[in-house]
Amino acid sequence: MPWDVCDVNDIRRVEEDYINLNPIQRAGVLTSAARKALISYGDGYSTCDLCLKPFRLDKITKPPIGEFYQGLADWLNMDVVRVMPGARRGFQAVALSLLKPGDIAVGSVLSHYTVFLAVEEAGASLAEVNVDENYVIKPEFLANKIEEIRRVKGRDQPKLVILSHVDYLFGNVHPIEELIKVSKEYGVPFLYNGAYTVGVMPVDGKKLGADFIVGSGHKSMAAPAPTGVLATSSEWASKIFSTTNMKGDVSGRSFGIKETHLLGCTVMGAPLLAMMASFPYVKERVKRWDEEVRKAQFFIKEFEKIEGSRILGQRPHLHTLMKLDTTASFDKIAQAHKKKGYFLYHELDARKITGIFPGATRNFKINLYGLTWDQVRYVADVFKEIAVKYNLTLSE
Amino acid sequence: MPWDVCDVNDIRRVEEDYINLNPIQRAGVLTSAARKALISYGDGYSTCDLCLKPFRLDKITKPPIGEFYQGLADWLNMDVVRVMPGARRGFQAVALSLLKPGDIAVGSVLSHYTVFLAVEEAGASLAEVNVDENYVIKPEFLANKIEEIRRVKGRDQPKLVILSHVDYLFGNVHPIEELIKVSKEYGVPFLYNGAYTVGVMPVDGKKLGADFIVGSGHKSMAAPAPTGVLATSSEWASKIFSTTNMKGDVSGRSFGIKETHLLGCTVMGAPLLAMMASFPYVKERVKRWDEEVRKAQFFIKEFEKIEGSRILGQRPHLHTLMKLDTTASFDKIAQAHKKKGYFLYHELDARKITGIFPGATRNFKINLYGLTWDQVRYVADVFKEIAVKYNLTLSE
Repeated sequence: MPWDVCDVNDIRRVEEDYINLNPIQRAGVLTSAARKALISYGDGYSTCDLCLKPFRLDKITKPPIGEFYQGLADWLNMDVVRVMPGARRGFQAVALSLLKPGDIAVGSVLSHYTVFLAVEEAGASLAEVNVDENYVIKPEFLANKIEEIRRVKGRDQPKLVILSHVDYLFGNVHPIEELIKVSKEYGVPFLYNGAYTVGVMPVDGKKLGADFIVGSGHKSMAAPAPTGVLATSSEWASKIFSTTNMKGDVSGRSFGIKETHLLGCTVMGAPLLAMMASFPYVKERVKRWDEEVRKAQFFIKEFEKIEGSRILGQRPHLHTLMKLDTTASFDKIAQAHKKKGYFLYHELDARKITGIFPGATRNFKINLYGLTWDQVRYVADVFKEIAVKYNLTLSE
Repeated sequence: MPWDVCDVNDIRRVEEDYINLNPIQRAGVLTSAARKALISYGDGYSTCDLCLKPFRLDKITKPPIGEFYQGLADWLNMDVVRVMPGARRGFQAVALSLLKPGDIAVGSVLSHYTVFLAVEEAGASLAEVNVDENYVIKPEFLANKIEEIRRVKGRDQPKLVILSHVDYLFGNVHPIEELIKVSKEYGVPFLYNGAYTVGVMPVDGKKLGADFIVGSGHKSMAAPAPTGVLATSSEWASKIFSTTNMKGDVSGRSFGIKETHLLGCTVMGAPLLAMMASFPYVKERVKRWDEEVRKAQFFIKEFEKIEGSRILGQRPHLHTLMKLDTTASFDKIAQAHKKKGYFLYHELDARKITGIFPGATRNFKINLYGLTWDQVRYVADVFKEIAVKYNLTLSE
């Protein structure tokens, strides 16, 4: 204290100086339009200059927030959308709307911790669906879990299923349409967790049949934290976005169309405007998802030439987020290295690559999203170069 | 669509081109250090470059987030503090921790709608304490309200009192120490709503005896939305910041020290860093609060020279936020003016003053926080000039 952003040591320049493979950061890097929006709309309640009746964030027309919300809904092919302060606040709004204390929701062994916390906050519990040997959730596993809960709880079946299309641990792409179908057959509403899909790959809510879609602005939509989206079908909108019933017992005041589970307005400043500024670019970039997958697959092919190295999970791998298993390669070197597991981090750092977990050499996650072909080739070459330096064999 | 922040029409320049009197915006205008932090830390999860075990936002040391949290706690003279995505999320965390369905919390006829919504989300109800003829909450009114609830509900007395030190409707400074004392006498925990105090005037939690302090980053701490602070005494910290008890039934996973009512990490990007960058300036500016009040009182003295014009509420007025009553002055003009109530907005706009509610001439709020003496004099002169133009009399 005081922390001084003008001090050159306090300026964040990782995206300028390095290729950053941090698994949660790649698709949250801002567009330059978003950065301009941050400067222009940085001040506190900057969105509220022209907030007129009925006084709600999504009704503001200048800047065109209402139009953006509609654009988001159309793009996701859902009926109603709200921007939330993070995907987790989307989980929470749905959990607090649908779950009562003692209820059971269904997640998976790959569920993010925020899904657990959102369910916990509602006083409910989360039952995990298991995965197969490739860490993929099979539709029949979900059916079995729902059956199991029904056997134990009688008619009090799960009130909500929350599953990720792409999980945060392996970057596996799960058979989400089939999973949603199973959930529908049991009449359980389905929350599609798109933290690693919305903003990077095409997502069509109606085609999927999702009741709710949650996405993350800072994880996958080139927006600053904390931002996220919560989209619903019209069937659910009035429940999730219910307006307040509160009335002052003395004043007689009521509070119009403020939405209880959102606590009224949500992201009324710079991060929302940055998300809006990135949106046209985000819409374009999802169309190039196949190319991103090709780059990831190219990297994997090169990386797996290193003796004892492989990726975990699905084959072929279908996402830019991946978990590398180097137990039989870099970890063996780490055991004899004076820097132990940190050697890999430092070797990468010396070559201007960062974002892997410091000290990790058994397995660690990386994300290649948005890197150019040249950068992907460079990253692959660097891993191979380090392998060769430590006498690991490369296959052809 | 697409909204283009590069388009000159979409750049927000109200703070450059105008004196902005918007009641919720004045103390949320960024410092230049905050604006630099936004640029530097704009990308998604920018705070998480060096997130190491135990993996929680407030434990990060580079940038010095942990140190900032401790600095905030010390400055408020409270034991534990967390940054939240808005003051409302602070209300919500406390409400969900302390209130069960059917419980009663106590607010006032001046409570902000977000207090109602946070209580509603917990399934509880909010009873309003009334105000005196100057719209000030009297300590005995609070005692009476608690007694009344105890009579109706028996031993099931209110579980929480939430009152604002300075309310959003009149900018009155309520006798908060006495109100907290009453609450304590009844053994009811007290949430001090400092949305209009924390960041502009000195706040000493221990001296006040508050159990919880909530403040707003975007309203009063020169930070972007959505930001806020939630501070507690050590007595309450373990309840409000309780860590998750969830455990995966199949995976056996548990989730370390993630805090349930916060949903884990809160503001993990640019707005937090902007708040940190402003903090040293904010700490200094609260020491100059008396000067801000003097400017407000100077304005009031000048403004009330306009025949039929006055401020509502406390005298002397002790805050920069105020509600002007112009029923007997500008509203009379509005009734005969071809632009009706909009005439005043346009007259001010023509003189580069903005931020009053368009169309309002009976009463409307303004905030003078942070204006220079020259700007305050100019604003007062403009109101008088418009009065004279429409043949209102000025007293000496």
